[in-house]
Amino acid sequence: MKIAIVGATGAVGKELQSLLSEYEGELILMDSKSTISFEGVDLAFFCVSSELAKKWIPIARDTGTLCIDSSTAFRSDPEVPLVIPEINAHALKKHNGVIASPNCTTTIMLMPLAPLHKEFQIKRIVASTYQAVSGAGAKAVTELKEQSQAILEGEETDPKVFPYVCAFNVFPHESDMLDSGYVAEEQKMHEESQKILEDSNIAVTATCVRVPVFRVHAVSINVEFMKPITKDAALSLIASMPGVTLKKNTVSIDGASQHSILCDRVRVDHSQANTLEMWVVGDQLLKGAALNMFQIAKTLGCLKETASKGVHV
Amino acid sequence: MKIAIVGATGAVGKELQSLLSEYEGELILMDSKSTISFEGVDLAFFCVSSELAKKWIPIARDTGTLCIDSSTAFRSDPEVPLVIPEINAHALKKHNGVIASPNCTTTIMLMPLAPLHKEFQIKRIVASTYQAVSGAGAKAVTELKEQSQAILEGEETDPKVFPYVCAFNVFPHESDMLDSGYVAEEQKMHEESQKILEDSNIAVTATCVRVPVFRVHAVSINVEFMKPITKDAALSLIASMPGVTLKKNTVSIDGASQHSILCDRVRVDHSQANTLEMWVVGDQLLKGAALNMFQIAKTLGCLKETASKGVHV
Repeated sequence: MKIAIVGATGAVGKELQSLLSEYEGELILMDSKSTISFEGVDLAFFCVSSELAKKWIPIARDTGTLCIDSSTAFRSDPEVPLVIPEINAHALKKHNGVIASPNCTTTIMLMPLAPLHKEFQIKRIVASTYQAVSGAGAKAVTELKEQSQAILEGEETDPKVFPYVCAFNVFPHESDMLDSGYVAEEQKMHEESQKILEDSNIAVTATCVRVPVFRVHAVSINVEFMKPITKDAALSLIASMPGVTLKKNTVSIDGASQHSILCDRVRVDHSQANTLEMWVVGDQLLKGAALNMFQIAKTLGCLKETASKGVHV
Repeated sequence: MKIAIVGATGAVGKELQSLLSEYEGELILMDSKSTISFEGVDLAFFCVSSELAKKWIPIARDTGTLCIDSSTAFRSDPEVPLVIPEINAHALKKHNGVIASPNCTTTIMLMPLAPLHKEFQIKRIVASTYQAVSGAGAKAVTELKEQSQAILEGEETDPKVFPYVCAFNVFPHESDMLDSGYVAEEQKMHEESQKILEDSNIAVTATCVRVPVFRVHAVSINVEFMKPITKDAALSLIASMPGVTLKKNTVSIDGASQHSILCDRVRVDHSQANTLEMWVVGDQLLKGAALNMFQIAKTLGCLKETASKGVHV
């Protein structure tokens, strides 16, 4: 098979290259400025902006290339499966040549929640996020380093990638403000959770926040269920979820370079019936993006020629 | 009047010194290792640990000194008023010589919520915090600087003040884990909110998290009311609350060295009736501690000899 990574030099593209380092077929790396031809390409991973994905994916698909997209471009398209393989691999059975990988924060949040939803039915999620700068790309990682250094040296520093200084600061997510007062990132968590869990009754309200962390997102989750749930039942279901590890004393950096989503502080919410609190962290570039795309390809049977470096799906 | 600051060299003590810099009476600075005598001291601000507050405050009070305590030692004592002057100054009318200043995060959260509670009655709060390291004292501020520098230089770094590395990391609050699964800081937000708002029916569930920020706490607040509330009604009440400023594009560092609590992103929660989301930031050392203590003293009529540097209460 001939596989392409479009946007291979970006933060997510580099992680895909690493995941595919043992791939024995032909691998083509394209940066976002390449003159792109998909002739003969069987599978393409798109790690580019929505704008570029919208431009190139229809061309690739018409050439017969299977497209796995990390951007938001096609996620809400009813013809495009939006897939976290451990949760809704069955949705891959029917597609039109394009598969979307979900928003990173949504993926990280849903990994421990999906098994609970199956048994106890989620009614409402209140989420607050602690999102790493890497979600805005490799440039943002450099900016956090440079700004931190400048501030430590008492120098002035101007934001370039984000609208605000990111070092030693936290701020609401920089995505577009909608008329509702939510930002686009928060709206994605609502819409994508419903699509992935295949339940349009699930209510999700989120506050998305950037924190000065390099590559791991954390989410504080308050989740109400339709049915009574105990802490023990929840722990047992989460423990048996592939791709999730129950941990103690979990900090953001524990999640760095991990394939697994780490889940901690599962407790009964004393303020409301049938409700749990929990704390979840995950590598935004891996399960939040590159790893999930890789797993989609593997689930589709596209990556038989690779050792897959211990990927469990 | 003769005023003492006990713990004058700590992070909160230094802020009190600054607030009292124009005080024209006698000011005595005591560090936490001084051999302390309260003879002739009219008013003492305690900016020390709970353990030291428990040891010294009864002695000071018996000497006739009015004690204002920043620690958790006496906050739940039914004989001790727990006061945010803009919210419940009336509670100061009756005291036994000790007044407690609330937990910093609780104070910051309640400032914009109090006027809403009066009109619409809070049913339940779901809060996630983004807490600065300064809450753990001046040493923690130094630790964040030193660890950040070490990490930027690719060096190993060991935590001293916190159980985890705080630089480029976020982690659940380090206070004691309770049997309920909540940590002490989260429990304080529940209990102190009820005491300050004088309503034991208010339910508060919180997840408290440290972030690599120097001195400003932020809180993501989801708040459900007993009565239907509109965004406009909320904005109008918050705007008229002394000590709170409605702002746009509010980031943590905007709150640094500000007396005012900044409130932003007030929006109707699309997931549940009678519910709002909002984002609040405040200087943890000022309104979260030193400023509130100063305001308590001023409300009690103790600081007539100072220009009060623009303090509004």
